[in-house]
Amino acid sequence: MNDRITINTILLAHGGGGRLTHELVSKIFKSKFNNPILDLLDDSAAFEIQVGALNLTPLQLAFTTDSYVVKPFFFPGGDIGKLAICGTVNDLSMKGAKPLYLSAAFIIEEGLEISILKRIVDSMVQSAREAEVQVVAGDTKVVEKGSGDGLFITTTGVGVIEDKSLKISGSNAEPGDLIILSGSVGEHGMAVMNARHQFGFESEFLKSDCAPLNSLVTKMLETNQEIHTLRDPTRGGLATTLNEIAQQSKVGIFIDERKILVKEEVKGACELLGIDPLYVANEGKLVTMVKRKSAEKILEVMHTHPYGKEAVIIGEVKEEPVGVFLQTEIGGTRPLLMLEAEQLPRIC
Amino acid sequence: MNDRITINTILLAHGGGGRLTHELVSKIFKSKFNNPILDLLDDSAAFEIQVGALNLTPLQLAFTTDSYVVKPFFFPGGDIGKLAICGTVNDLSMKGAKPLYLSAAFIIEEGLEISILKRIVDSMVQSAREAEVQVVAGDTKVVEKGSGDGLFITTTGVGVIEDKSLKISGSNAEPGDLIILSGSVGEHGMAVMNARHQFGFESEFLKSDCAPLNSLVTKMLETNQEIHTLRDPTRGGLATTLNEIAQQSKVGIFIDERKILVKEEVKGACELLGIDPLYVANEGKLVTMVKRKSAEKILEVMHTHPYGKEAVIIGEVKEEPVGVFLQTEIGGTRPLLMLEAEQLPRIC
Repeated sequence: MNDRITINTILLAHGGGGRLTHELVSKIFKSKFNNPILDLLDDSAAFEIQVGALNLTPLQLAFTTDSYVVKPFFFPGGDIGKLAICGTVNDLSMKGAKPLYLSAAFIIEEGLEISILKRIVDSMVQSAREAEVQVVAGDTKVVEKGSGDGLFITTTGVGVIEDKSLKISGSNAEPGDLIILSGSVGEHGMAVMNARHQFGFESEFLKSDCAPLNSLVTKMLETNQEIHTLRDPTRGGLATTLNEIAQQSKVGIFIDERKILVKEEVKGACELLGIDPLYVANEGKLVTMVKRKSAEKILEVMHTHPYGKEAVIIGEVKEEPVGVFLQTEIGGTRPLLMLEAEQLPRIC
Repeated sequence: MNDRITINTILLAHGGGGRLTHELVSKIFKSKFNNPILDLLDDSAAFEIQVGALNLTPLQLAFTTDSYVVKPFFFPGGDIGKLAICGTVNDLSMKGAKPLYLSAAFIIEEGLEISILKRIVDSMVQSAREAEVQVVAGDTKVVEKGSGDGLFITTTGVGVIEDKSLKISGSNAEPGDLIILSGSVGEHGMAVMNARHQFGFESEFLKSDCAPLNSLVTKMLETNQEIHTLRDPTRGGLATTLNEIAQQSKVGIFIDERKILVKEEVKGACELLGIDPLYVANEGKLVTMVKRKSAEKILEVMHTHPYGKEAVIIGEVKEEPVGVFLQTEIGGTRPLLMLEAEQLPRIC
């Protein structure tokens, strides 16, 4: 393992979305499960199922799973239940799929108040209604007190990719593409940290952006413009997502710091913690790379949607050098690296 | 809540597969998520997706999820990884579906040895290969030391129901049906308990029966005989599964104790713990209710398969009374009730 100290045990950082998560995923999961669908490492897997005779068009499905371990359960703007629905709906949407059916598996620690569980399930029901998906399968396991942390929820989603000409993937960014970000960054992670540690920021101003993005994506797809990549910058934030795309597509991603919206309260909380908002998780934002000539039309429809009304072009894709580069407010350009270690544990 | 003491917090028994699990599922999950697919409460959900024009036959899919929290990770005959693959493959098979794709979400406790994780993933890979399914989507979360218990795995599966005339459901048992059990009961639960508590039974003789049943089910379906229900008697054992079917189908299920195979070592371990083997989890067995005239042909092909070679008719379905009734070895008949409370925590 080159010049590093060999790591033999799982660290919190393995779950942080940064370099260690990527190493774990690629060295263990990707290399062992070893198949071309998993290898893409997009937000959702996509596969075809042949229906009837071989001359009929196969059905193209998207499939994604996420465990939610957020702490605390409730925070301004959302809760673990809302997150579990929206997160999985969004991962399907980021593959251009229409989310249809979800499963929900609950690992409950003995002693959890049933009233809390009910509140969380109510929130899931409400989010599922907004996203127009159905929770059709589930499971419940209970572990002894001290063997869990109240509640973990794993949701898995199935969606259909109706337009088979779509080729949306983190590996499809092309030199010349423009990069659109749907709104301000850093709210979700900072809202959860504020709720957990009670920094005292008013919850009215520091709220999670947690939202289902499928109706926004539908509007974007309906423009029939050329969309190459679609991602929601969750764990690890915008910087990590852009780094993943740069690696997958082998391109240079150049973004302008002055174009990226960060709310005042998020800036304040980030300064307090010494954290860069570009590395903080979002749960209701998307970043997309689109053909240059398509950008205007896509931006236009995004502005008509409540979850896209602050959408803005933040940069462009170049052939090289491979990586992410930030044009700073003072006019310089610096590489924006992948997060090394855990910054904000358990924010989703 | 009638004459019971109201329970306000989650107890271990809520995860045991017995009455409390059923109450939790029906009062909270089923009533809140409220949709006809979930309402069936079969091992898998089934739904149709329309492909192309409306005059084309829609694709019928099965979808199921389970979290695995078994302790210890490794036990004779299996481990948490093998279980996570086989359990989900089996749930799809029990709906008559051909399992295709699985997702796997890992909730890891900080400090887990990476070598253990690798061993578990290797075991998943091997089981997926035997079952001919692909793991195409995944997730990794890490929680702090003390907030988990090493590793929890949630797998979700998608399968296709190729024969649309199949109507296999826990609610389809019919009076007159014969009941076939694929082999001996109680091995999985007792093997895990023996591994956890080191009762000292030789692991050579007390092994989990954990196995993927999809190829056995395929053979059974290929007979084109009338199969009404298919279930794998996992958590809560054969007795609980039969009670679920009796309730769902509103029938009387009469089984003969003398026909049910229980290995000597399982009997011994059950006696030691004061547990009835009919309530102990299996992970490689199925119970099926079939049209009387179909039973012989189905039994015949089951006997040609390694996981069905000890299959035997254990009883029959009657119109009433609704419930499960056991003809005992000494010749009497007694009701076999649903498990009240937790017997064996964390065996799957």
